[in-house]
Amino acid sequence: MSFAIPAIADLTDAALTARLQHIIDFKTKPLGSLGRIEALALRIGQVLGTEAPQLVQPQMLVCAGDHGIAARGVSAFPSDVTWQMVENFLAGGAAVSVLARQHGLALTVVDCGVAKPIAPREAAPGAPQLLLRKVAPGTADASVGPAMSAEQCQQAIANGMEVVRGLPGNALLLGEMGIANTSVASLLLARLAGLPLAEVTGAGTGLDAAGIERKRAVLQQALDVNAQASSPLEALAALGGYEVATLVGAVLQAAAERRVIVVDGFITSAAVLVASRLQPTVLQRCVFAHRSGERGHSLMLAQMQAEPLLDLGLRLGEGSGAALAWPLLQSACAVLAEMASFESAGVDNKS
Amino acid sequence: MSFAIPAIADLTDAALTARLQHIIDFKTKPLGSLGRIEALALRIGQVLGTEAPQLVQPQMLVCAGDHGIAARGVSAFPSDVTWQMVENFLAGGAAVSVLARQHGLALTVVDCGVAKPIAPREAAPGAPQLLLRKVAPGTADASVGPAMSAEQCQQAIANGMEVVRGLPGNALLLGEMGIANTSVASLLLARLAGLPLAEVTGAGTGLDAAGIERKRAVLQQALDVNAQASSPLEALAALGGYEVATLVGAVLQAAAERRVIVVDGFITSAAVLVASRLQPTVLQRCVFAHRSGERGHSLMLAQMQAEPLLDLGLRLGEGSGAALAWPLLQSACAVLAEMASFESAGVDNKS
Repeated sequence: MSFAIPAIADLTDAALTARLQHIIDFKTKPLGSLGRIEALALRIGQVLGTEAPQLVQPQMLVCAGDHGIAARGVSAFPSDVTWQMVENFLAGGAAVSVLARQHGLALTVVDCGVAKPIAPREAAPGAPQLLLRKVAPGTADASVGPAMSAEQCQQAIANGMEVVRGLPGNALLLGEMGIANTSVASLLLARLAGLPLAEVTGAGTGLDAAGIERKRAVLQQALDVNAQASSPLEALAALGGYEVATLVGAVLQAAAERRVIVVDGFITSAAVLVASRLQPTVLQRCVFAHRSGERGHSLMLAQMQAEPLLDLGLRLGEGSGAALAWPLLQSACAVLAEMASFESAGVDNKS
Repeated sequence: MSFAIPAIADLTDAALTARLQHIIDFKTKPLGSLGRIEALALRIGQVLGTEAPQLVQPQMLVCAGDHGIAARGVSAFPSDVTWQMVENFLAGGAAVSVLARQHGLALTVVDCGVAKPIAPREAAPGAPQLLLRKVAPGTADASVGPAMSAEQCQQAIANGMEVVRGLPGNALLLGEMGIANTSVASLLLARLAGLPLAEVTGAGTGLDAAGIERKRAVLQQALDVNAQASSPLEALAALGGYEVATLVGAVLQAAAERRVIVVDGFITSAAVLVASRLQPTVLQRCVFAHRSGERGHSLMLAQMQAEPLLDLGLRLGEGSGAALAWPLLQSACAVLAEMASFESAGVDNKS
């Protein structure tokens, strides 16, 4: 198993930042009046290393996996929904399929560890593609022991890196599917940030208050039985999932290649949290699409000093929030490239 | 001058609402997990009166005018910037030009009362068009008397209705340009909502604290000298501007025709506030694009019980925020039209 955390350079480039800021400040608008869109243009320019960033061949990567802990009743939906939704992604009927189509995002679905065998298939040109990178048919139940072995976890990370190496373009949007994976994200947040489960455990796909309380009790067992797993990689193996580990690899590789990384909700943020604990500079490449309605996401974002673009009460995952935010990234680039300056338009600047 | 407030029907249709909600609830996603996008789909379906709404030929309408009160130094920019920006809109270099192009929004710029003569011109196919509906070359200074006569104000409203009647499509995005028009919006909000100027007067295009204090003092003079103007139409004439009055007419006409109205920031919200005081049912047709960084906008939104989609610290106006939010409306329709149901996709619903 070949796996090495790639070197990820510090992007701080004061000269480029100053040039970008100057361009933004002399566009025909009051200083700062495009708010977060200006910061977004600056960020994309910094990631792509140019005053004239162009987003090319954006890739929506949806990683799917199952979780042994689902058998403990931590989700409102049965595990079978994971493979059913993989089929739905590929057939074009899921939210992320619809939104990716709307925005011209190429959709790749990866079976990272779905319990049910997923049959290989050829994708028609332009249709969603399926990649089979199953490490195992679902993780073990993290409430009684480690979800993955260290080797399995590292294999999933290596898979994520390899998948991204094979994708074109300079922007990667993160998505996921896996019944019970809000449990995984809550566990990783609790362990890596030292936060109490009561603050980071939410309704997921729709638990009621009693269901959340049962879920929290099961997650406490998982934390207790995996008490020794404290480093980011140990925590990921013990508490994580194959789709999350594959996403960690995808984030590391995309960051190393200076792709713009668009983070979706609670679960993909958990993957970025792990990756950022391995290499903090990955955060320089990330755009956080939205603040999820799932309890815990705000605390997770705060761990990364992340300010998301949207706040629409989304809690679907799949990459749907990343897709919804995507046009804002395109707008930021369009503003940078196409808006006139005060000088070029002959408009008087502030008196 | 022919002007009559059109009848605007109550859209409440419990049967259609129930059908729309049923479609949304049985899409392959946890109940409610698309958050505000679901509410948006419901709203658009209600406005267009169908379970299968399609947004057709969206129109960005940018109304421009000048303000006598600008001579009192209430803006950081000189009045000449109004006509300069009209030229910039038409030349394609302004933020709203760029964003309208990105999203395929037809752009119409209306000279409602710009101080400088704007030369008529033919638009190339697909390029922004200019309409000349100038009532007067700028309003009178509202700090010493009424900004418009009742007849001028009604002419501007009638112009807005006529302009919208001439535009195709079923969605109207509102934009504006007019140096000093945050002053107009603050005045209308203060008068119609009975709020103190200190709470509704902001930095506009970039005043410092001392500038805001001077602006507030000038606005107080305008309120005092126009103390008798209390009804929505009286307040609009006394304190308003030609672009705002034209927008009021546009909103009334678009609402009467059941177009989806996408409201931009502080100034277009002021036009909707006036229109909604004339006909409260216009609000049923409105989608509020964003919460502006301009002080007072949150209070104005609260007056209309409006929850905007974006909160990105925008304070540019022009319709830029409406354009940035536009893809979310398209997403809402795409979700409604294209997502599979649990039944059609063979996905298990909540256990």
